[in-house]
Amino acid sequence: MIREEDINGRILYQDDAHKFIWLGADPENKKGVVQTNQFLIIDRGRGILLDPGGIHLFARVVSVASRYINIDNIDTIIFSHQDPDVSSGIALWLGATKARVYIPSLWIRFLPHFGIVDENRIKGIEEEESTLKLGSGAELVFIPTHFLHSAGHYSLYDSGSKTLFSSDIGAAVFERDQYLFVEDFDEHLTIMEPFHKRYMTANIVCRKWVEYVSRFDIDLIAPQHGALFNGETVKRFLQWFETLECGIDNLDQIYSK
Amino acid sequence: MIREEDINGRILYQDDAHKFIWLGADPENKKGVVQTNQFLIIDRGRGILLDPGGIHLFARVVSVASRYINIDNIDTIIFSHQDPDVSSGIALWLGATKARVYIPSLWIRFLPHFGIVDENRIKGIEEEESTLKLGSGAELVFIPTHFLHSAGHYSLYDSGSKTLFSSDIGAAVFERDQYLFVEDFDEHLTIMEPFHKRYMTANIVCRKWVEYVSRFDIDLIAPQHGALFNGETVKRFLQWFETLECGIDNLDQIYSK
Repeated sequence: MIREEDINGRILYQDDAHKFIWLGADPENKKGVVQTNQFLIIDRGRGILLDPGGIHLFARVVSVASRYINIDNIDTIIFSHQDPDVSSGIALWLGATKARVYIPSLWIRFLPHFGIVDENRIKGIEEEESTLKLGSGAELVFIPTHFLHSAGHYSLYDSGSKTLFSSDIGAAVFERDQYLFVEDFDEHLTIMEPFHKRYMTANIVCRKWVEYVSRFDIDLIAPQHGALFNGETVKRFLQWFETLECGIDNLDQIYSK
Repeated sequence: MIREEDINGRILYQDDAHKFIWLGADPENKKGVVQTNQFLIIDRGRGILLDPGGIHLFARVVSVASRYINIDNIDTIIFSHQDPDVSSGIALWLGATKARVYIPSLWIRFLPHFGIVDENRIKGIEEEESTLKLGSGAELVFIPTHFLHSAGHYSLYDSGSKTLFSSDIGAAVFERDQYLFVEDFDEHLTIMEPFHKRYMTANIVCRKWVEYVSRFDIDLIAPQHGALFNGETVKRFLQWFETLECGIDNLDQIYSK
């Protein structure tokens, strides 16, 4: 269960200059609609939003974010990939803030189909430096996550809070109550594994990504759906994902329908 | 070049009971926005729309479609996958028509993020019969196209017009003038191959799909972007796609950025 006091978010990490914030739960989330997490980094007063989500969440997310920061100070929005639940609110966010938007370059030419216009505020991640340096000294590192599942996809490591924002990796689809942190990993697998076996492309790609992120010191893994991993479950998660058979590893089965 | 008289579409096939129609070009299509094709099947007065597209195209597509059919008679809309250029206009289309929407089941729980509501009108393709039988006797056959590129993705074969609607497969990204049919296949490769090498998952999946579609008698291949294949280029296309190395076949290269 999400605690009453967490409905409007929780600060997951903070020091004098840097915060990593979970932007709460949707109390109206319905069965049949995939639940999503949104995150806000605040670094010396500057706001960075991660996957703020689709059209139907916009009002809630903008209102929760404004409890932590003046919306005018959100100068960066990062979209990890092109899915509706990630980026379909882009036109609204461009209107509400003055932020620049980072998105995998593969999807830039698809964005105008959401109805947006100002190309000058859109940056293709592949064309930029792979690290954003923040005022506090913290760094945000874009991590290639292609074909997990999206063909063009990035996770993000925040060195300030030692958080890995893993987007669709680590996602779970709640069937009953939502909870913020994974406590019983084996129990959590029952709502996490089916998603990964069907949406993720192949074990060879999972291994590649785990190899890539293993260079970072990770206290927290924060996916875009489902619950967060901290403490022992960080390691358990990476071990599990590294050996997962998925997607085209079972091609005949997937193409049976 | 698209001929002046084709701007508002062209009937690609017709007999007494059945038509397959290309819904024209966007005269305002800008550089940097991926061009898309929309198609309309009319069978004994009943309309079926294929990938009618995103928000910014809605006004044009609804207006062109209504040149061929009363919008009220469009009772079926098929979305091949979840990308913005395919399905972000879904809420508008549900409002403008009484149609049922078919979409790969994997994406149903993501749709409400576009802002739609009426779940009773949404059908998950995996849960339905794989063939829609039409009044004329023609059949529409859903063809698994998963991981090319989307994890949940269907092409559609129309036996009435012998057309394979191939969605993102066969897509090309025009750099200069748009044209309706591929005439010089080798020349066309220059704007088609880069897209497929980066967005499609792996050769093993391409081969699987070609094997699957080879059971059909195909006069026309109609992709969602780029130009159409007819005559000799149908065979050339399938031969080329069957041997394409792509996506995770070059994993190190893709994960270099």
